[in-house]
Amino acid sequence: MSIITLTTDYGLKDHFVGALKGKLLTEQSDCTIIDISHDIDPFNTVEASYIIGAAYASFPKGTVHIIGVDLELNKENQHIAMQWNDHYFIAADNGILSMLSQKIVPQKIVAINIHDRLPNNATDMDVFVKVACHIARGGSLSVVGKEIATIKEVTDLQATVSVDNNTLKGHVIYIDHLGNVVTNISKKQFIEVAKGRPYEVVLRTKNIKTILARYSDIAISEKYPIKNYEGQKLALFNEAGFLEIAIFRSNPSSVGSAKSLLGLNYRDVVSIQFK
Amino acid sequence: MSIITLTTDYGLKDHFVGALKGKLLTEQSDCTIIDISHDIDPFNTVEASYIIGAAYASFPKGTVHIIGVDLELNKENQHIAMQWNDHYFIAADNGILSMLSQKIVPQKIVAINIHDRLPNNATDMDVFVKVACHIARGGSLSVVGKEIATIKEVTDLQATVSVDNNTLKGHVIYIDHLGNVVTNISKKQFIEVAKGRPYEVVLRTKNIKTILARYSDIAISEKYPIKNYEGQKLALFNEAGFLEIAIFRSNPSSVGSAKSLLGLNYRDVVSIQFK
Amino acid sequence: MSIITLTTDYGLKDHFVGALKGKLLTEQSDCTIIDISHDIDPFNTVEASYIIGAAYASFPKGTVHIIGVDLELNKENQHIAMQWNDHYFIAADNGILSMLSQKIVPQKIVAINIHDRLPNNATDMDVFVKVACHIARGGSLSVVGKEIATIKEVTDLQATVSVDNNTLKGHVIYIDHLGNVVTNISKKQFIEVAKGRPYEVVLRTKNIKTILARYSDIAISEKYPIKNYEGQKLALFNEAGFLEIAIFRSNPSSVGSAKSLLGLNYRDVVSIQFK
Repeated sequence: MSIITLTTDYGLKDHFVGALKGKLLTEQSDCTIIDISHDIDPFNTVEASYIIGAAYASFPKGTVHIIGVDLELNKENQHIAMQWNDHYFIAADNGILSMLSQKIVPQKIVAINIHDRLPNNATDMDVFVKVACHIARGGSLSVVGKEIATIKEVTDLQATVSVDNNTLKGHVIYIDHLGNVVTNISKKQFIEVAKGRPYEVVLRTKNIKTILARYSDIAISEKYPIKNYEGQKLALFNEAGFLEIAIFRSNPSSVGSAKSLLGLNYRDVVSIQFK
Repeated sequence: MSIITLTTDYGLKDHFVGALKGKLLTEQSDCTIIDISHDIDPFNTVEASYIIGAAYASFPKGTVHIIGVDLELNKENQHIAMQWNDHYFIAADNGILSMLSQKIVPQKIVAINIHDRLPNNATDMDVFVKVACHIARGGSLSVVGKEIATIKEVTDLQATVSVDNNTLKGHVIYIDHLGNVVTNISKKQFIEVAKGRPYEVVLRTKNIKTILARYSDIAISEKYPIKNYEGQKLALFNEAGFLEIAIFRSNPSSVGSAKSLLGLNYRDVVSIQFK
Repeated sequence: MSIITLTTDYGLKDHFVGALKGKLLTEQSDCTIIDISHDIDPFNTVEASYIIGAAYASFPKGTVHIIGVDLELNKENQHIAMQWNDHYFIAADNGILSMLSQKIVPQKIVAINIHDRLPNNATDMDVFVKVACHIARGGSLSVVGKEIATIKEVTDLQATVSVDNNTLKGHVIYIDHLGNVVTNISKKQFIEVAKGRPYEVVLRTKNIKTILARYSDIAISEKYPIKNYEGQKLALFNEAGFLEIAIFRSNPSSVGSAKSLLGLNYRDVVSIQFK
């Protein structure tokens, strides 16, 4: 059995996701297809980067991940397949995979070159389907592409350390369905820079004194029921290893969210100030 | 083959549902995973209760149902696994399963106690994944938990009978995607109290004279096309066996819904008056 | 292995889609179930028609397609199963399948007649489940229905050619999740009428000079980056073979869409003027 995951901005109203699955099953009838997300903000490669980086590790090694965001082959973006950390990723070379390749060196990258072997009316996704099923069958990357050494880098959204080493400055890269905001400050980078120093998380208008290990750690007192803490702001390193600013038990349609209550939006600055 | 169903408030934008499926497949590669809903109103255990109660019977006996709503292990809620009516349910003990246990006595309930056997960074859902796959493989509940006699009861939303036996008073517990509202008045309770008496369904501002067997029974006259009945209010016992107030062929974005047209919201009173 | 696809207006919040899958797996444990869409506009048979017509060809021959839109058995609509182009379709006879049958003559149509073989409380979808699993097991249509010669036709939304042969007049039949609008003018009909003549696509307030082969063909100049073309209107024949009016890299929540920017709505006229 082989697993193929899907991350796209196709949405679920149209027939595109269903048709994509039909094509995969036509090509490889025994593959297991798992949706990661089809609600990536249209053409938002940073969101797609974060989602695939947060999700891949939950799948077995050898899983093939198709990323259908901004995938049109054009004069700027070629199609690539990358073996990385024993997983396989198929995407356009638009920076989506650079969040991964900056963390661990890829095992192999190829520029896909099977386009002229497909029918004239084949779409970009048809190319990805062929490549994904080839890899799922245990096929080699060399058969579907020409090896390349590097991929396009996207660096402008990385967290940076100030010259005096006292500030770690990041940005909001993702807003989840509850309105919690995720930054590009990783737990790893935080520990390296902090070296045990006291700190404060600095938001646009408010600060947070502690980064928690889990949401319910906000309920510090044994005296009060957990319900009393609803609506409090908190910071924690989330499952994906990134600093997240959240409202405890937030609900965008009632109590509000970090996005609405703290005025934090995509690309806004969040930093950690060391003392 | 074993089936594992998922009912959560995770939403479909984020990677959480995909990652959960990846973990299940890593643990048990041949399980069949079926989504029941991932759009439960956040932390709304009553909605989750209704949905799982309405859905479980469509699955084969032996199916394992994971309920990922308000699942964080904390000082108030432990994790439980329950064998009930030959199905298995895994949830936090926050009242979600009491709608089931009040109807039929559970076959076995355990307080899950495998937390210290998992890695330090394991999440609450990781615990559920381990337990679900253990049960799906035919494992016994005793291996993953300590037997307990009872679970937390949620009673404040049950329909009640007046002292003079003339009124059955319920509440709205669920609003579906078409804006139809579902109450906690069951067909079984209605029949027991009615004993064949005439009745009227009493809403906030309007009454309905008859409870129908199916939506299109509203189109009583053979003379008119069904389209003529669009927008009419009706009451029926739905597939799950609960009284539902609906607008015939409602569409929240055009003709309106029971929620909008009749002003019925979550927790609002709907009663049946006998004569 | 047999594939069963689902196209409904059930939405994903409620338990209906999950329960439907549970019933299919109870009846036929080894079928592969693929969602095409559950977000069809409620009771909108034209949208359902377009979606199933656009999606079916991506699946292997022999696939069974369940269409759960306006499926209630009533005095106007019977339940039908149709073998067409080596695929199987199960729907109410409400016009949904006529977009297919007008293109290619069906191989066989039956009026489903197994209703009285099911339990008293069986729903319309329960009937579809029984029929779908019967076909998925290789069963014959004759066993579940009585052969009929024709199905209900829906013609009012077909594109028409003017008497002077100079205008091809169509309508918007579908609006996708990016706000691109799809018309009922097919590439096939366009080529037949055009006979190589120059043309212009006439919208409500604006015209478009060329129909493109793919979205990024809008970026004609090698001098400018693709990003410069964002927000430009364009026309193309989409994957399903129909004329689509789009905004390049549209995003309904930021740059806008063909629907919002060009004021094009469901049933609005779009025509092609030949010179």
